[in-house]
Amino acid sequence: MAVSPEFQSLSWSLVHRGRVFELGIEEVVLPGGTRARLDLIRHPGAAAVLPLDAKGEVLLLRQFRRAAEAYLWEIPAGTREPGEDPATCARRELAEEAGLRASTWIDLGDVLPAPGYTTETIRLFAARDLEPVATRRDDDEIISEVRGFRPDELWDAVRVGTLRDGKTMAALLRALAAGLLDLGPVGPLGPGAS
Amino acid sequence: MAVSPEFQSLSWSLVHRGRVFELGIEEVVLPGGTRARLDLIRHPGAAAVLPLDAKGEVLLLRQFRRAAEAYLWEIPAGTREPGEDPATCARRELAEEAGLRASTWIDLGDVLPAPGYTTETIRLFAARDLEPVATRRDDDEIISEVRGFRPDELWDAVRVGTLRDGKTMAALLRALAAGLLDLGPVGPLGPGAS
Repeated sequence: MAVSPEFQSLSWSLVHRGRVFELGIEEVVLPGGTRARLDLIRHPGAAAVLPLDAKGEVLLLRQFRRAAEAYLWEIPAGTREPGEDPATCARRELAEEAGLRASTWIDLGDVLPAPGYTTETIRLFAARDLEPVATRRDDDEIISEVRGFRPDELWDAVRVGTLRDGKTMAALLRALAAGLLDLGPVGPLGPGAS
Repeated sequence: MAVSPEFQSLSWSLVHRGRVFELGIEEVVLPGGTRARLDLIRHPGAAAVLPLDAKGEVLLLRQFRRAAEAYLWEIPAGTREPGEDPATCARRELAEEAGLRASTWIDLGDVLPAPGYTTETIRLFAARDLEPVATRRDDDEIISEVRGFRPDELWDAVRVGTLRDGKTMAALLRALAAGLLDLGPVGPLGPGAS
């Protein structure tokens, strides 16, 4: 994606170099000429995979997320290693986290999870024709369960808010748009909805 | 959401207090007993609104996002002020960014945009029965256009990747699940898809 011709970065001051991303303060000129100071996370990007099995179910991981102080149902995903292309990252994460290899891959395009403050772009994929391989999880990846959701279960989980991870919701939307999923009858939203 | 009983925060070391969020390094004990050091963004939370007009169109803003180095089509959204509840924030952002007031509100629940590193939770709403009010934008909010998307245009934008903002995609998924939208025929994904 080309930089807007009217946008200029004047300076970048590194605040913190973390394991996954770095945070800095940037002075910019925005389109139209306004100068601003932004707290900006520079992130190497990520990839995520919606695994579709032969029964028409979507496989999700139940993963502990400290930031949410909860276990979340999510699709397999991870940060890109230096120089790693998104498809390689997606294959790696599908194997490591879900213990699966896929022979059919569909590129579902990008989602920007929080463009107000992080450069992170997540490339989304759907994966089909799955077969098991060994998982290999990092010590700090706490995954308590991997299981298939039938379309009606998945749709219920979206409605009730059990499913509230952004990248997983984005992948489902693209998969619906592509005709890879048909989630079934609509209905009122669950708890958390008024 | 209750903290997992097995999770413990051992220490928090503030690295940066920004205008919107703070970044710190946290020592934690994860469920299962693994100790880890995490770079964690503490964010006050946000709200976002999917505005549905009388013609059945969805109103989107075209907003410049430095992190994406591009203009993105997004629903109105913003960070919660201290003590502000999500519904008040959503009303404020709909007025300030889109110049609209709504008399019908539907709570679409929460999305977690990036639970790997930020505590941000975005409460999603749909808003109907819209009438114009004055916009009041911050100097650093560069919004070049506000316009209605017909369902077929919106669905195309999802497929092609013109629409790639996470919160907007999450709101569309919940609105579909709730039967508030019917985006029309599915088809192959556009550029960026293989």
